Amino acid sequence: MPNIVHRVGIEASQIAVYKALTKQEGLAGWWTRPNGDGANVGARMQFIFKRGGPTMEVIELVRLKRVRWRCLDGPAEWKNTELTFEIGRFGSETVVLFRHRGWKAECDFMAHCSCKWAYFLLSLKSLLEDGRGTPFPVDRHISEWG
Amino acid sequence: MPNIVHRVGIEASQIAVYKALTKQEGLAGWWTRPNGDGANVGARMQFIFKRGGPTMEVIELVRLKRVRWRCLDGPAEWKNTELTFEIGRFGSETVVLFRHRGWKAECDFMAHCSCKWAYFLLSLKSLLEDGRGTPFPVDRHISEWG
Repeated sequence: MPNIVHRVGIEASQIAVYKALTKQEGLAGWWTRPNGDGANVGARMQFIFKRGGPTMEVIELVRLKRVRWRCLDGPAEWKNTELTFEIGRFGSETVVLFRHRGWKAECDFMAHCSCKWAYFLLSLKSLLEDGRGTPFPVDRHISEWG
Repeated sequence: MPNIVHRVGIEASQIAVYKALTKQEGLAGWWTRPNGDGANVGARMQFIFKRGGPTMEVIELVRLKRVRWRCLDGPAEWKNTELTFEIGRFGSETVVLFRHRGWKAECDFMAHCSCKWAYFLLSLKSLLEDGRGTPFPVDRHISEWG
């Protein structure tokens, strides 16, 4: 099955990255606000966009190293997909290896989401390096899906 | 084999997008300067980065609709991979469906390149919508590969 994969290096500590991936305020700063934290396995977060948003269940956490979600609800193509953020060190940077796996087909919507995930991972980088991300709502859409 | 796929909608004509993917000045405006045009099948372009850069052969052109390259030389992981830009209309936008195919493995470098391709496709969008892209050299690197 096709996957979306991205990798970004961030001049920030692993704890700063881990918080930005597990805390409500952190997630709101680079992607979009969820209705709670994702700091415990089993937590369910609905991420708020203009018209609803996906619900993620936190299915694995390895402190400072890994965050893994399963999409319980959201766009049909996302249902039961898994999203993993692997956190590691490389030189002076904290590296995030992102994977969105379980797509049934390499569809147009997947290609849109791939581009958009890169946009938001660069937003995570900006948030942690400059104190300011570019979360939803973004200043311009990437294609017809937002 | 794993693929990189991205999709971006651009408020510009198909001819403007096609030129930006086939003409030396266009390519220089969103990715990096090649040593010539890519406007004919069989053309070979070396794209200029800090230390060398990949050489692409134009292997297919469908005017206003498709541009396809094969990587002849460059990073080991890129050799013999294929890059396709499909151009179409959706509503008021020209949509570019980008694919970089033929990767042997879903390696860290592929994940880096996926994020970076998204960055440069958004640069293509900025170039055509605002008259100003964000080509190489970029203001900050995405990870240790640039």
